[in-house]
Amino acid sequence: MSTEGEFELIARLAPFLATGGDDLVVGSGDDAAVLDLDGRGVCLAVDVLVDEVHFRRDLSSLADVGWKAVAVNCSDIAAMGATPTVAVVGLCRPASVSGEEIEELYRGMSEACERWGLRLVGGDTVSSQALALSVTVMGDVEPAKAVRRSGARAGDRLVVVGALGAAAAALAGFRAGLDVSDELLAAHRRPIAHVEAGTALANAGATAMIDVSDGFGADLLHICEASEVGALVDAASLPAGVGVAAVAVQLGRDPLEFVAGGGDDYALLAAVPPDAADQIAAALGGAVVGEVTEGGVATLRMGDGTTRDLAGMGWDHYADAGEQA
Amino acid sequence: MSTEGEFELIARLAPFLATGGDDLVVGSGDDAAVLDLDGRGVCLAVDVLVDEVHFRRDLSSLADVGWKAVAVNCSDIAAMGATPTVAVVGLCRPASVSGEEIEELYRGMSEACERWGLRLVGGDTVSSQALALSVTVMGDVEPAKAVRRSGARAGDRLVVVGALGAAAAALAGFRAGLDVSDELLAAHRRPIAHVEAGTALANAGATAMIDVSDGFGADLLHICEASEVGALVDAASLPAGVGVAAVAVQLGRDPLEFVAGGGDDYALLAAVPPDAADQIAAALGGAVVGEVTEGGVATLRMGDGTTRDLAGMGWDHYADAGEQA
Repeated sequence: MSTEGEFELIARLAPFLATGGDDLVVGSGDDAAVLDLDGRGVCLAVDVLVDEVHFRRDLSSLADVGWKAVAVNCSDIAAMGATPTVAVVGLCRPASVSGEEIEELYRGMSEACERWGLRLVGGDTVSSQALALSVTVMGDVEPAKAVRRSGARAGDRLVVVGALGAAAAALAGFRAGLDVSDELLAAHRRPIAHVEAGTALANAGATAMIDVSDGFGADLLHICEASEVGALVDAASLPAGVGVAAVAVQLGRDPLEFVAGGGDDYALLAAVPPDAADQIAAALGGAVVGEVTEGGVATLRMGDGTTRDLAGMGWDHYADAGEQA
Repeated sequence: MSTEGEFELIARLAPFLATGGDDLVVGSGDDAAVLDLDGRGVCLAVDVLVDEVHFRRDLSSLADVGWKAVAVNCSDIAAMGATPTVAVVGLCRPASVSGEEIEELYRGMSEACERWGLRLVGGDTVSSQALALSVTVMGDVEPAKAVRRSGARAGDRLVVVGALGAAAAALAGFRAGLDVSDELLAAHRRPIAHVEAGTALANAGATAMIDVSDGFGADLLHICEASEVGALVDAASLPAGVGVAAVAVQLGRDPLEFVAGGGDDYALLAAVPPDAADQIAAALGGAVVGEVTEGGVATLRMGDGTTRDLAGMGWDHYADAGEQA
């Protein structure tokens, strides 16, 4: 689906989605919804992975796919400052997929559940033409501590935890037939959700947070739009994944295309008050990459002092490449 | 998928699914999982509907399909004695399905959400070859009042709320080219979740409960297996849907095939202590259809006094027909 089509669809469906009110602390349009149950905040996030759209079986094992389906949801939960608790899975199974293969998929989900301390508590497996998994993860958060996309304020620092560009570079290199390292491929196959970091950023007073799934630039713009702010980012400070630059050189592409435009990173991007940013970034092995500004423009400052408008950089096709296998 | 294949798959995946313990009041293997959050019980149920497997677009509008995806999950929540609160949807969308059609699907989900008082709080829409919806519904229940499949005791009465056989008869009639009434077709297109009845049955002390999705006989056997009990059911007391008998006559089939074997009913079947059964059944417009017995045999007593073993009645293909469009 094109990015334009996606925006149109979101607008079309908005009237049917609850955005908040009463006990609905966070509604549709954020990384996860949050419901306040007498002081316990319950988060809910859903992500769907489809064969040949989000993964390809010559690159990822079904255990990898299962892992990823849980991990990307845990990343959404982390971006609220929440902790995942349980998951359920809706599985569309073509007749060509054997019981052993479904078991492998579940093993991968189970490994990811163990990694992030949640439990797989149910599912529905149905016949279908295409293999697809829809995983829903529930999370736990103090309602008052849930971090939306919409709270960033001018002067806040932008903190990134996790590496950028690795998943997109791995996929691009694999597609081009390069000899991509297993370490780099792992960024695509078995992404890491930064759950502990999400909680720590929330506790450090993060005013807005998102997980980087569409690409750093696109997700920063999501925060800017929701918070009605701008941003100034130092390109040199963006934490590129190990091996990204080498793949870019071999492909004759600018590493920034992967780092700022790639997607599928599952890093966390947070706006943090200036007096807390350096300390929390250092504690989490993250990076302060820029700051929140007045106005709606998100600017990337290059090493040579020139600036570029993040919204106009036209990385959509790389973002697509990052999201689509 | 054949019933045999489904049982094998369930056994294969069991090691990866949490069945309970600690704060997990009800784990995998019931209508919904229940987590105890400091005294608030949170239910989670998931169901997937796939085009040409669970619905056919010459019979159901996409608004019907959206309604049904929410309703069948609300029925699972109802079978725990819980009340649905919020839903999220994972939607697999082929390029051939327009934005208007997706909007129609959401409108149907929204109508069902309004009917049962829950809110649609998020979703993920992805490209796919086949149209499929995976809806997850969260529910609210006092943890101590959550009704499992496993608590039925010999002497309890079996109570059914809702009509049996209508959805399966509607589908069979439609397939055979009969002139099926809109009222009967509605049982297939827009099933009703008996949420208020589920809560009332729980409050009346129901010891076990399930929603009838696989067919009355199959779901009664699920309660018998989970509770390690048997059952004796009066065939004449089963509440057949209006118009079921007429379709059966036209097709030259026994109405009981639809009523006890059909599936897709979303009636509730509960085991209720004998002193409470008649009163609660009457209050809910339901029927007392039999009783729970010692031992593992589920018996259907026919009008002529003969008996049949429900487990051996070989309705699997009708159950399949009920679940598959």
